[in-house]
Amino acid sequence: MARNAERRAALVDAAVEVLAAEGARGLTFRAVDAAAGVPTGTSSNYFSSRDDLIHQIDGWLHQRLAPDPKAVERLLERPRDRALVVAFMHDLMGRAQRDRTGFLAMMELRLEAGRRPELRASLMTSLRADLDEGIAFNAQAGLPGGAEEITLLYLGMLGLILEHLTMPGMLDDAIPGVSVPDGVVERLVERIVPDGGA
Amino acid sequence: MARNAERRAALVDAAVEVLAAEGARGLTFRAVDAAAGVPTGTSSNYFSSRDDLIHQIDGWLHQRLAPDPKAVERLLERPRDRALVVAFMHDLMGRAQRDRTGFLAMMELRLEAGRRPELRASLMTSLRADLDEGIAFNAQAGLPGGAEEITLLYLGMLGLILEHLTMPGMLDDAIPGVSVPDGVVERLVERIVPDGGA
Repeated sequence: MARNAERRAALVDAAVEVLAAEGARGLTFRAVDAAAGVPTGTSSNYFSSRDDLIHQIDGWLHQRLAPDPKAVERLLERPRDRALVVAFMHDLMGRAQRDRTGFLAMMELRLEAGRRPELRASLMTSLRADLDEGIAFNAQAGLPGGAEEITLLYLGMLGLILEHLTMPGMLDDAIPGVSVPDGVVERLVERIVPDGGA
Repeated sequence: MARNAERRAALVDAAVEVLAAEGARGLTFRAVDAAAGVPTGTSSNYFSSRDDLIHQIDGWLHQRLAPDPKAVERLLERPRDRALVVAFMHDLMGRAQRDRTGFLAMMELRLEAGRRPELRASLMTSLRADLDEGIAFNAQAGLPGGAEEITLLYLGMLGLILEHLTMPGMLDDAIPGVSVPDGVVERLVERIVPDGGA
């Protein structure tokens, strides 16, 4: 049973690789088996359908792309001001850069959701829960920025992550003297989130 | 010759449909022929390779997604203030909603660019030219907002278009009392672009 769970996790990770490398259309049991280095036919023993596989990728990506609890704990030792919001956004951008595959796979899931109503419903629920959690986290931590600021920041960061992961360099020197992506992250927060503590 | 140009344009439009509906991986000559309702083999007479086809889609999408010159002219009759920046962003969002297929096809091209360096180079050049043109347009028109504001607004709008086209409803009531997408567009502009005319 434990071995089965491990094998299943390895297959889901391989599926994330396939999704980022080939797009949703390339996501087949055969491609996942090949990416995981297991005999053809293995995936079909672990997932009842392609929808089941996509559902499990969605669940796993939400964990994989989430912040490291220890990093959050360390960040929360700092003063609860706008600079800390910047630090949290730098942490998000850092995760996107370190796990480019995972973040691109999530972008592929978004586009696939645009095509498939049943995936759309489940992805919408989980992404909206993430956003609401972010808003609640900010309030609980006494950080500046409410529902409006966090929602707008979410949209700006989504655009920046999409652009930076697919076309690094595209925004270089677009804002004179501002580095990409870290300087752009700072400017986004400065514009969107009011200054002056909680 | 004229008929050839028309046929080619119809094939590129069919390719945009395929890209939005199936993703980049589903973009084959055969799929384009089927979407265009022409005999199998037709596309291969019009495009030297799949790269050639993608290159022509890229060029066509830049025209297809651009604002209507008449709409721009009408908007420029208004006072050159922040409200006009909002109106231009509403125009962009309106185009995204009316031509969901075209805008989603461009998102697919971005993700494909993340995988294919030769497409990345050409798409980066054209998207960056669009951004620089937007910055120059704003300055020339005497609208509020320079390189920084337009770049940040571009990122926020990119995130909003991605989210709204793939998961309409996801952001409903995220900001209490603010409509999606029009109210969110207004808030983005209000936060990012300073008030007070040119």
